[in-house]
Amino acid sequence: MKNKPFLTTRKLQPENQESPIHFLSTWLTPAKYFYRRNHFPYPSLTDRHLWLQICGNVPQPRFFHLNDILSLPEKSIILPVECAGNKRAYFDPKVHGEQWEDGAISQGKWTGVPLSHLLELTGFYNQTKEVVFQGADFGRKPDKEDLIPFKRSLPLEKALHPDTIIAYLYNDKPLDYTHGYPFRLIVPNWYGMASVKWLYKIELINDSFNGPFQTEDYVYYPHKHNDHKSFPVTTLQVNSTIQQPLPFSILNTGVHEIKGIAWTGKGVITEVEISLDNGDTWQKAVLERLNEPYAWTKWSFLWHVEKKGEYSIYARAKDSQGRIQPMNAFWNRKGYGYNAVSKVNVKIE
Amino acid sequence: MKNKPFLTTRKLQPENQESPIHFLSTWLTPAKYFYRRNHFPYPSLTDRHLWLQICGNVPQPRFFHLNDILSLPEKSIILPVECAGNKRAYFDPKVHGEQWEDGAISQGKWTGVPLSHLLELTGFYNQTKEVVFQGADFGRKPDKEDLIPFKRSLPLEKALHPDTIIAYLYNDKPLDYTHGYPFRLIVPNWYGMASVKWLYKIELINDSFNGPFQTEDYVYYPHKHNDHKSFPVTTLQVNSTIQQPLPFSILNTGVHEIKGIAWTGKGVITEVEISLDNGDTWQKAVLERLNEPYAWTKWSFLWHVEKKGEYSIYARAKDSQGRIQPMNAFWNRKGYGYNAVSKVNVKIE
Repeated sequence: MKNKPFLTTRKLQPENQESPIHFLSTWLTPAKYFYRRNHFPYPSLTDRHLWLQICGNVPQPRFFHLNDILSLPEKSIILPVECAGNKRAYFDPKVHGEQWEDGAISQGKWTGVPLSHLLELTGFYNQTKEVVFQGADFGRKPDKEDLIPFKRSLPLEKALHPDTIIAYLYNDKPLDYTHGYPFRLIVPNWYGMASVKWLYKIELINDSFNGPFQTEDYVYYPHKHNDHKSFPVTTLQVNSTIQQPLPFSILNTGVHEIKGIAWTGKGVITEVEISLDNGDTWQKAVLERLNEPYAWTKWSFLWHVEKKGEYSIYARAKDSQGRIQPMNAFWNRKGYGYNAVSKVNVKIE
Repeated sequence: MKNKPFLTTRKLQPENQESPIHFLSTWLTPAKYFYRRNHFPYPSLTDRHLWLQICGNVPQPRFFHLNDILSLPEKSIILPVECAGNKRAYFDPKVHGEQWEDGAISQGKWTGVPLSHLLELTGFYNQTKEVVFQGADFGRKPDKEDLIPFKRSLPLEKALHPDTIIAYLYNDKPLDYTHGYPFRLIVPNWYGMASVKWLYKIELINDSFNGPFQTEDYVYYPHKHNDHKSFPVTTLQVNSTIQQPLPFSILNTGVHEIKGIAWTGKGVITEVEISLDNGDTWQKAVLERLNEPYAWTKWSFLWHVEKKGEYSIYARAKDSQGRIQPMNAFWNRKGYGYNAVSKVNVKIE
């Protein structure tokens, strides 16, 4: 009998479930194991949602039907989508919000049309500053009266990047309803809140977009009681996760494979190091890469251990921009971008 | 769309998965949501396992076929089975082993034949001291050479208790393979390790049984570095779990239902109290009971909160033996029987 993992349920209203990241080892996360992070109830979709609207300050505003979009040249990219709150449960002091552990990240093959192709067809004015993306999902937020749609913007330059795509396939199949069918914006290198699901309206504007998911949530607030020095959440931190062994597991003496994944939003992972002496000395893990610029890197390290006792396993990734996972994460009030050195304690019996 | 929870995967080899206790509110846990706690790989079952053997120091040793057992008078009991390691993740200092949070407990209706009926048919000698139960599962343990079967004993008196049953139905259906088909011993009031799955051999002995799951594991060791003052894990502690609200959730001002379950291995739950001021004052929750002596008690409390800020919700249960959940759990090296006051932090925005 092959034992199978499940998503880990964090909340049901709205549905927030974590990927069983410790028990997956494929490059492409199967759709059923992709983490689910929703701000609102699932939207009711109609034929209207098969039309993607580009509007706002645009020379030729128009609607693109799914079939129009399928007829355009497609592009496929393998990349992880990571929730900005991934690993929030590890902040110390603790912060409120979904208590994600390591599984608010999943990787797959996204296929779609670059947004820049669509914007060539509609045209855009020189003074365009941002592009606003609206999903079909909406609902209430604490401390607000009105119904609020999920809306986020990108600077024009990021929106025009050739790898910013409107995806309609995941792992070569139509997107699951839970993951944004029929259209999901995919923004490489940014945290997942930018990759808007159930995308149905794209608006070009000449100023800066404000909205609760742009200027209230998904903002780093370094202070507990005031908003000083806050700044927006955008690109992924350099980060890693130890998939095996499991936290607080009890193992035999002998050889164990320590393994995991590492990823970054700037450049590529150049090194993953392991420490077995609380960070005094570090040894290089073996890296395994896809020939894909944004995909996560797998790493592994063979650990020979003969002495019984308790051990801490540390892992830290470095990227080609010289960034390295810090010993302590940058604490912020809403708990985004946790990327401290990954740690797993084990006992050898 | 109705969002559904999943089991939470703690380990796959062997399979250890937690019940989504925060998202279930029925008296009877559906079999698919029953927690899975295995010591070894799932056993390969054959027709041999349809025969339950009673042997050892017995006047009339014999095998009972499933059909023999089905023909005997049946008894149904609703009760929770709780892993002795439930809530282990909350010990401070942390202990090694499966990091169960609140979901290593599930409740259902168990139907079977009292073991005492079978022992009337085989007879037993006056000098019998213990009854040893063996499951079909076996495997390796760290730091041991041999293959080890899962074996546990009960004192004769507990084995003869009219509510100690050999169950073959769960919620009116044959036991799931993952939960001990065809026979599971059910020992009311004791932690789950006593309720041996895939039961196929019962041996009566005149002395005390020793085995790794009896005298090494499932023992309270109060000291980290020695075995002084150790004693066996048997009856359930008085305990409770807050099912809602969820830990570190962000809520509106207004009225919230705080709700959960409480249970004990001695007597019945007489009171559940809630504190919203870190334990200075306590208010009674409303209890809801089944007319079943071992079933858990549901409790709820309506919380009116108008002031924004961070709150800790405490819940503690009392039983008819005068036991009450302590502010701090009794720390023990292998992490059994955690039953400190239940706590959930929330933020009101």
